[in-house]
Amino acid sequence: MTQSRQQLVAGAADMLRRRGLNATSIREVAKHAQAPLGSTYHYFPGGKQQLATEAVRWASDTVAEILRAKLKAGPVDGLRGFLALWREIITGNDFEAGCTVVAVSIEADSTALAAAADAFSTWEEILADSLRSHGAENAEQLATLIVASVEGAVVLCRAQRSAVPLERVGAQLEDLVRAATR
Amino acid sequence: MTQSRQQLVAGAADMLRRRGLNATSIREVAKHAQAPLGSTYHYFPGGKQQLATEAVRWASDTVAEILRAKLKAGPVDGLRGFLALWREIITGNDFEAGCTVVAVSIEADSTALAAAADAFSTWEEILADSLRSHGAENAEQLATLIVASVEGAVVLCRAQRSAVPLERVGAQLEDLVRAATR
Repeated sequence: MTQSRQQLVAGAADMLRRRGLNATSIREVAKHAQAPLGSTYHYFPGGKQQLATEAVRWASDTVAEILRAKLKAGPVDGLRGFLALWREIITGNDFEAGCTVVAVSIEADSTALAAAADAFSTWEEILADSLRSHGAENAEQLATLIVASVEGAVVLCRAQRSAVPLERVGAQLEDLVRAATR
Repeated sequence: MTQSRQQLVAGAADMLRRRGLNATSIREVAKHAQAPLGSTYHYFPGGKQQLATEAVRWASDTVAEILRAKLKAGPVDGLRGFLALWREIITGNDFEAGCTVVAVSIEADSTALAAAADAFSTWEEILADSLRSHGAENAEQLATLIVASVEGAVVLCRAQRSAVPLERVGAQLEDLVRAATR
């Protein structure tokens, strides 16, 4: 990917996690990424649909890479890395940014829905593989609980403008992961 | 509340949970509720901001009422009622409707953010009170985990067009609530 194409995809992901799908336009993404509008249409002939789908895939890959790296030290460290990632997004953006994948999942006629489904499944599988290899029963259930509760906590944090929901969920999940992989 | 005012608030809540805040307009809400546009501006002089805030409060009260009723039979039954409510919204709308409160929480400059924060806090408190009165330690933590994970699961269900995330989260939460209130 060329640098400017990459900047547009990352810029779109950032706009989506702040404003949602409907409020994100190709024009605004170009402005946000300080790229000429023409280059945006050149790189993304499929328009907003294509850009949103690529933004979700990019966000998915970014999180998956961090998850895989942190899980090398075990499921508890992996969970902590996952929580730290979201805490940084939330607190580093004054509670005004959340998850790109959630943003495209909750609007009717979302064109990036298949990419969003893949993103959640990928994260769930990465977590389930680690939990299973460390002896957890119900690894799939626990992995889904981790992804769902952390994503939900990020939404609660934005509404309440506080990191407390993520801290509470993190404490509960860490107990569960420890117990399941003992 | 007069019947037509009530219809507009419920209609707005329904549009928000399907399309998100940005894609919801006063004009569309009036059309959706089959109400004249003039009556909408008459009832909601504060425009979309006022309507979205009232829609969130209405959704909050509706869920709180069901939660309180179901929790009378104990925390496990309360949890099951909460899960059943979301399962019905998800599967009864072909995975194209989610939570009104989540919808207004994840868009920048959301004017209904304070009402959304109150909604989540209210549900957390109702659950925590029940858990605490049934002997749970860390009742607040567990209550936040329930709200966050169920809300997150609803998002996963929409993306994956499947009720599996909610079923997995429900099974994990029921084990936790049983263990905490034993």
